[in-house]
Formats: sequence, C-alpha cells, structure tokens
Amino acid sequence: MGDHPHHHAVFWVDATARVLAALRQRRPQVHALTSPVAQALTANLLLAAGAKPSLSQAPGEIEAFAENTDALLINLGMFDASRAEAARRALPILERRRVPWVLDPVKVERSTGRFAFAEELVARGPQVLRGNAAEIPLFETIVDRQATVIAKTGAEDRIEAGKRWILVENGHPLMAAVTAVGCAGGALVAAFLAVEPDAFIATGAALLAIAVAGEIAGEHVDGPGSFQPALIDALYALDAAALEARARVS
Amino acid sequence: MGDHPHHHAVFWVDATARVLAALRQRRPQVHALTSPVAQALTANLLLAAGAKPSLSQAPGEIEAFAENTDALLINLGMFDASRAEAARRALPILERRRVPWVLDPVKVERSTGRFAFAEELVARGPQVLRGNAAEIPLFETIVDRQATVIAKTGAEDRIEAGKRWILVENGHPLMAAVTAVGCAGGALVAAFLAVEPDAFIATGAALLAIAVAGEIAGEHVDGPGSFQPALIDALYALDAAALEARARVS
Amino acid sequence: MGDHPHHHAVFWVDATARVLAALRQRRPQVHALTSPVAQALTANLLLAAGAKPSLSQAPGEIEAFAENTDALLINLGMFDASRAEAARRALPILERRRVPWVLDPVKVERSTGRFAFAEELVARGPQVLRGNAAEIPLFETIVDRQATVIAKTGAEDRIEAGKRWILVENGHPLMAAVTAVGCAGGALVAAFLAVEPDAFIATGAALLAIAVAGEIAGEHVDGPGSFQPALIDALYALDAAALEARARVS
Repeated sequence: MGDHPHHHAVFWVDATARVLAALRQRRPQVHALTSPVAQALTANLLLAAGAKPSLSQAPGEIEAFAENTDALLINLGMFDASRAEAARRALPILERRRVPWVLDPVKVERSTGRFAFAEELVARGPQVLRGNAAEIPLFETIVDRQATVIAKTGAEDRIEAGKRWILVENGHPLMAAVTAVGCAGGALVAAFLAVEPDAFIATGAALLAIAVAGEIAGEHVDGPGSFQPALIDALYALDAAALEARARVS
Repeated sequence: MGDHPHHHAVFWVDATARVLAALRQRRPQVHALTSPVAQALTANLLLAAGAKPSLSQAPGEIEAFAENTDALLINLGMFDASRAEAARRALPILERRRVPWVLDPVKVERSTGRFAFAEELVARGPQVLRGNAAEIPLFETIVDRQATVIAKTGAEDRIEAGKRWILVENGHPLMAAVTAVGCAGGALVAAFLAVEPDAFIATGAALLAIAVAGEIAGEHVDGPGSFQPALIDALYALDAAALEARARVS
Repeated sequence: MGDHPHHHAVFWVDATARVLAALRQRRPQVHALTSPVAQALTANLLLAAGAKPSLSQAPGEIEAFAENTDALLINLGMFDASRAEAARRALPILERRRVPWVLDPVKVERSTGRFAFAEELVARGPQVLRGNAAEIPLFETIVDRQATVIAKTGAEDRIEAGKRWILVENGHPLMAAVTAVGCAGGALVAAFLAVEPDAFIATGAALLAIAVAGEIAGEHVDGPGSFQPALIDALYALDAAALEARARVS
C-alpha cells in the first residue's frame, strides 16, 4: 500500500513540519471542552505546539469563546451535564463559522448516558472522531465517513478518511502510563485542524507529532512521572530533522 | 512490640511486594471521588502502581462506574454537594457488591458541613479511614474499630485494626511540600484493597510503598517541583529489593 | 528615577528576602478561588513559598475558609457562577476581618459577563489588581488608585501604587509557555500580602521572587515541560544571595 503519496513517510514528515511551523507562527486559539483531569496537560501540550488554549465551560461564557476560537475539542472524559450544555451552545456557533471540531468519546463504553450524548455529537459531523479500540467500533455504523475522519489510537494509530488511510507506528509504552496523554493528543488534533484545512492530513500529522515526541521523551526518562514533562519538552522542540529520523508510517 | 509477625519488616516487605505484583498483573479498576486539585496526581500514582483509575462524579454516570470498580476512594478535599451526591449514589452499589472503600476526610476540622458528611460516611463503615493528626481524633468515638482500619498519617504513619497495629517510619519531608501527595496515598490504599482482602495488610503495604517511594524520590531531587515526577517514577519502579533495603516498620 | 529607595534593587532584594523568611516562618493560610486548570500549580507554588494553600469554593464551606485565611486570591480564569457566588460570600468576611485580597481578571476582555463581575470586584477595592496588558487598561478609569495596587505583568512587570511604581525586569520566556504561571503568580502576591502590610512592597516582592525563580529555572531546562517543576524548585530554594545576584528593578 506504499504506492500512494500519503503512505510515504516523507509526505508526512513534510506535512507535520509544515503544520507545526504554521502553528508556531499563527498561534491559533484552540478551545478544549475537556475532562478536569486532562486540562493542565492539554493546555501545556497546546502551548508547546504553538497554539493558545482556552478551557472555559460556563454557559454565558462558552458562546464568546466559541465565537473566537479557531478549533474546538469536545472530550467526554469525566462527562457531566454542564459540559454537555457547553457543547450544545458552542456547536451552532462553530457550524455557522465553519470552524473544525474534534470529538473524543472517552470511556463511552462505560456509561449509557455518555454514549447517547456521543451519538448525538457524531451525528453532527465532527471533522475528526478520535478514540481507542474500545470506543471507535461503537460508532462504525453511524459515523458519516465522508464528513468525519476516524482516528483509532493505540500502540499504533490508524487514521481513515474515506478511502485514504495511514498507520502511525511511532510512540512509546509510557504514553499509556500517564493520565490524559490520549486526551491531550485529541486537543493537538484540534490545533492542527486550526491551521490545516485537510482534516485527514491534520489528524495524521498531529498524531505523528505526538507519537514521535513520545518516543523521544520515552528514551530519556526513568518512568511515567518524568515522562510527562519530557513529552511536553519533546513536542516543544520537535522539528523536521527529528521527524525525518524517526517517522514510521505505512 | 516486635514479637508479632506483622511488626517485622520482612513481613511487610513481602506483603507489599506481593500486592504490588498483583496490582501490576490484575490491573484493577479504582474509582476516586476526589478533590479536583488531587485528580491528576491521584490518577498518575494509581497508574504507576498498576491500577486503572477513573474519576467521574456526575449523577447518572457514577452508578455505572461503581458497578465496575474494584475499590473506591472518597476524599473530602474541596468538598462540595455534587461529590456528596456521587458518594451517596455509589455506596449502596459498593455495599451490595462488597467492594472495599476508603474515606479520607481532608481538612474536616475546617468546616462543620464537611464534618457532618464525614460522620455519615464513618457510620457506614469504610474499610479504611485515612487522615492526619488533626482529622483522625475527631472520629475516635464514632468509628467502629472492628469494621474500619484507622490510618493516621504524618512523619510516621500509624495503622490500627482492632488489636493489630504498625508504625511505618519511612518517608521524606518533601511529601508534605507537594499538594495532594497525602490524597494520592489514600487512593493507593484503595488500589491495594482491590487486590488484598485483609484491609490492615493492604493499608500498611500501601502506605509503606508510598513512604519508601517518597524516600527514594527525595534523595534525587532539588525540591518539591522535581519531587512530584520522581515520586511517580519511584513508585513505578518499586520492587522487593528496594523495599527490603529501606523498610522501617515497628 | 533611581533616586527613591524603592527604585533601588537593594531595597527590593532585602524586602523580598524578608517576606520570604516571614512566609517560611509564619506559614500563613492563603485561600485561592481560582481556575481549575491553575489549582495544582497554584497550590504547589504557595507551598514552595512557605504558605498553606486552600482552594474550596462550595457555598457553606467558603465562609469557614474565609474566616481563617490570611489572604485571598480571586482569579477569574474559567470563570463560572459558582466561583462568583463563593467570592460574594467570602468578601464580606474578609472586609470585616480586614484581610487582604488580590483580583486577577484573567481573559476578562473575552467575555462580557466576566468583565461585569470584574468591575463589581474592582469597585470593592482589592488590595491588588494583577493582570496583563490586555486586561489592566479596561479598569484604568474605575480602579481606586488609593486603595488598590496595580500590577501589570508581562515580559516586564510594572507595579503602581499611587505615586510609587517599580519595574521588575527579571523573568524568562518559558513563563509564558506554561499554563497558569501568571495565575500562580497572583496567588503568590496574596501570600506576600498575608505577611507584609504594605501592599505595594508585598506585590513588588512577590513578582520579583517569581521572576527571579523563573529566570533561574529557565537556565536549567530543555523546555516548558521541565520548566514547571524547575520553577517550583527555584522558588523553594530562593534566597537573598540569588536575589542579590539577579534582581533587576527600576
């Protein structure tokens, strides 16, 4: 399957380096409606990539943030009614402004209420649906594959958009040993969407960036505690040379 | 008092190493209803010990998490009405399923409402009541010492279960200089309860594990900032050899 | 302008070292009504400076914390109605007890509701109004300059109190690359107010302390991930010698 350009590592190295450069130059606003436990790491990884994060959720405030953001993440970890209300207030504004958004249906298999809300959101056509091997299959029959890029993350990440697909094979086992690394990866996808109009390329590039950063971080640390700051440092320093030396995609 | 087996360091070294091995193999679910400021460190220390953390608190969600968790922590730091409701919804499910839970009545001496709720919970018979020297004495007359292990933590930790008791003398002053280390220790007790049926042994082993990890971490850092990741790393790497070399119990 | 004592670095080095020593000896309670994303870093920087942090916001609890705190921060990041209610319940208690408080109107330019609440608070006369170059000018016409010290922070920090002013020129670019460093700086101002009755001196000393700590931290790290723990360590270790070697004020 290596015959199409987007299966070539060089294509993704170039795309990822280009999007990172755009983020660092344009500094887009990225709003994250996300799990409380993920907020600090999410904000810090967005800053490390070049984006300006915001996290407000209150009714009466979310509308103003939605009017000014360049992309949105809706993450359902630690889901509650106030986040659902914030999402329902933000989405009409994003749809009118044609601003991209990402859905991350964290642990949606664990709660029927969370799953019902995720179905409602999937039907609205997020640019990207990001989840793991337990979450993504629950939406296979309802997601509109023309409207939504599907990113199934894990030891490998598989990103699909209609007939296009890519496997990102980079990463490090410690990424699964720190809370909210996956959630922050979803926010990074939103940041990449803010500056890259092709949602498939934005998603693949974002997940390649964090996977390579994770791989670099994992080589220099003693465990999951020191891995978290090292991951932020590695994303902050990530450049074309590191991507070129390490990217493994197929 | 060193004549009973559970006063011997070798007993606790073996028990702690055995419970850690069980955690890393069985990967139990541990749910934490805990203070917002403690959530990230709590989740990361649970992951470092081998458990799978969850943190949801919303009514309509907490029930499903309570049905599937292997242990529960109720921590009253930054107490509010929604956490009280989550606890009241979770506990009947845990009682029916005979799943162990830990109460950590943080700063209960500071607020009458928090104390009243803590009394309600103590009367329900947590497997473990963990607190510091200001908190534990407030419950001395109401706690059922047949049902509840009492862990009074500080520079030394004293764990009591009926006539059994142990002092854990390990630790490091920096453990008190980082927010939520004690709270995360309470979560670790819950994790140990998930795989060790004797609540006295689970509690002593959990507090020995974090105390030894804290001691190791404290020797390699410059201050409380670098202590936090080092503590997570040390717990992640903790093994029988380190426990054997360091454990001080009496 | 270097002719007045409070423009001399030696004055500020002495004042900052003296306030830090008082914090470490007296260990005041500092309550922070602050953004969820800022809570952990805020608590950890307060602990590193010598203060005892508390963060509760619930009605029915905030009153007891307000009765016992030695200073209060009200930070409007991720503003919501419950924080507004907590502030309205806490302030009459602080006013009666004559306890100082700091207002940090984070991103107040982004939301009309947040701005209206900030105006209400400014009219109540915080001892210190801390904000950045986008936020402070919005209050220039309504703030009572006899009652309130104004701290406009950025690459340089300018602190004004009536006719007195100071520029703090220390700092490091990575301070802007980590979420909530500015917010935690506002909490540090509250801590300094808890032990230093001259609000102008307390504010200048607190902002000098964190700026010098940031400068030290920035020299030893690889990026914003490792900067955060290094900042906490540097504040924890900050002493008169480091202040004397580095302080740049005018």
